Amino acid sequence: MLVSDLGEEGLLEQISAIFADKASRLTVPIGDDAAVFDCPPGTQQVWTTDLILEGVHFQRPWLTPAELGRKSLAVNLSDLAAMGARPGCALLSMALPPDTQVEYVTDFCRGFSAMAGEVDMPVAGGDTCRADRGLMVSVTAGGTVPVGGALLRSGASEGEIIYVSGFPGSAAAGMRLIEAGRSEEFPGLRKAFIAPRPRLDVGRSLAALGVGAGIDISDGIAADLRHICRESGVGAEVRREQLPVSSELKRACALRGWLPGDLALGGGEDYELLFTAREALTDRVARLSGELGVPLTRIGRVTGAAAGVVMMDGSGAGTAMPLKGYDHFRKDG
Amino acid sequence: MLVSDLGEEGLLEQISAIFADKASRLTVPIGDDAAVFDCPPGTQQVWTTDLILEGVHFQRPWLTPAELGRKSLAVNLSDLAAMGARPGCALLSMALPPDTQVEYVTDFCRGFSAMAGEVDMPVAGGDTCRADRGLMVSVTAGGTVPVGGALLRSGASEGEIIYVSGFPGSAAAGMRLIEAGRSEEFPGLRKAFIAPRPRLDVGRSLAALGVGAGIDISDGIAADLRHICRESGVGAEVRREQLPVSSELKRACALRGWLPGDLALGGGEDYELLFTAREALTDRVARLSGELGVPLTRIGRVTGAAAGVVMMDGSGAGTAMPLKGYDHFRKDG
Repeated sequence: MLVSDLGEEGLLEQISAIFADKASRLTVPIGDDAAVFDCPPGTQQVWTTDLILEGVHFQRPWLTPAELGRKSLAVNLSDLAAMGARPGCALLSMALPPDTQVEYVTDFCRGFSAMAGEVDMPVAGGDTCRADRGLMVSVTAGGTVPVGGALLRSGASEGEIIYVSGFPGSAAAGMRLIEAGRSEEFPGLRKAFIAPRPRLDVGRSLAALGVGAGIDISDGIAADLRHICRESGVGAEVRREQLPVSSELKRACALRGWLPGDLALGGGEDYELLFTAREALTDRVARLSGELGVPLTRIGRVTGAAAGVVMMDGSGAGTAMPLKGYDHFRKDG
Repeated sequence: MLVSDLGEEGLLEQISAIFADKASRLTVPIGDDAAVFDCPPGTQQVWTTDLILEGVHFQRPWLTPAELGRKSLAVNLSDLAAMGARPGCALLSMALPPDTQVEYVTDFCRGFSAMAGEVDMPVAGGDTCRADRGLMVSVTAGGTVPVGGALLRSGASEGEIIYVSGFPGSAAAGMRLIEAGRSEEFPGLRKAFIAPRPRLDVGRSLAALGVGAGIDISDGIAADLRHICRESGVGAEVRREQLPVSSELKRACALRGWLPGDLALGGGEDYELLFTAREALTDRVARLSGELGVPLTRIGRVTGAAAGVVMMDGSGAGTAMPLKGYDHFRKDG
């Protein structure tokens, strides 16, 4: 059945039913003019929002509707993770072409709901309307941090170590393999692109540890490290040979002639965390990595602002980090 | 200059500058992974979100970019008003065709910022990306109510009086006059559609007064009263001759052969408040109307659920209220 046959009210009923399971955690759930919920004492609100458009951020054949639903929330949760926040609740808006199958929408919502369930987050509301062409999703996610406890881009200091979680570049490799029809041979890389795991535990633990600055590397290490440097008024030196490369990423790069470092620096969509921490926290960071089962790899050091953002190769020669991440508007973007 | 020439980073800089004036009220404003702000003690969070799409909700020639920016926030503020909430902060996402003029975007943001300024609301973040076709805007607005003090759709009781603010039908008349190229003769109706005033003061005062149920009539009185009846488990009887009609609306209806009651019941986009209050509050509601300078007109009464939602004409004959408001997906919607 198409959404144009079912109509708006019928569609909303089906969507609300999917999101009903955690509604009791809200004072006022979906169904009123707005959602109402508590702000736990001693906390501040943390809010972020992302657009996800067909043809811009994804192509339908790339991922199932449930995978798309899951990822739509995951990319927002990654922003909460980068702030060290605990998930609160989410709002989901969808603009749908009238010839969209109802099942596509409900499967999307089930994937969204599954991701929300993994982090115990109610879906508090949203909006639906007709789109002339292409599916458009807008997700807003709210969470909380202890008062004054958010992990910021502006917290880096000269001399701190730069770390990254996971294996950056994996998502970019996964996307290219999907485009090339070769992703089945590399399930880990496909998963890195299709079903990124927001690093909520890592972010919360880092914020509690009192590390310097943190950001999620949705735009690639080069662009996102530059954000930290600008906001903190520092420079940075990254060592190319220290960038962590998984065996699967190494294998894919060898097969396709890619440089893993290029994918990590410029690829984007990894939703891993980049952070800085003073030398004295080295053991604590290593222990955290073990406890959470997430690689946290040191890849460089925070320098003075005058030194800029530099990439060092194995021979010790430094080059300026590429200036740009992905640009949505430029013709060559 | 086009957004594709300026690029994403340059555009974000210009947008951030426009929204910088109230940023100091946020702990972390635009520029980090997420915004951080306080939840005042003794309050709950109230959040709502709306999509506004070119070709679906508006046509560009209908309104200036600043008017569109203003309205994009106003429709969300109306949802906060309907909950009796005080505005907190807003998030703004825009998907832009690459050939959009930068000035269109900055004018849009100035209009959005002006509306935010009127209600002392900081803009806390958002997202931008490329759209293949047509401008898409997603706005999320948060506010606060005293704990347990939200005005709900579910609060109506049998015997209460039904009121409406302003002159419903004005926005629908304004839109039709704009489409017909006749809006200049009816500036009040044009304004009702282009620049609706969210009834924040009315909503907060009504919640404090302890009225029954409240909703904003974005979908027209028929559809939105039905929401109240369903959520409250009641029926309703509306008297057609009591629907308030401004002299300008009367004049436009006479000229174009419209029935003002039909516009009020089915037109939508009014962003006025519909609410119910027990008889004992009659004087308080009348005083409030005078204090705020907003007409609050009694249009009917809450009945038992079995009676349904009925429209009474002047002769005392009742007919069932039309079932449907605007449906985004139905072909005949």
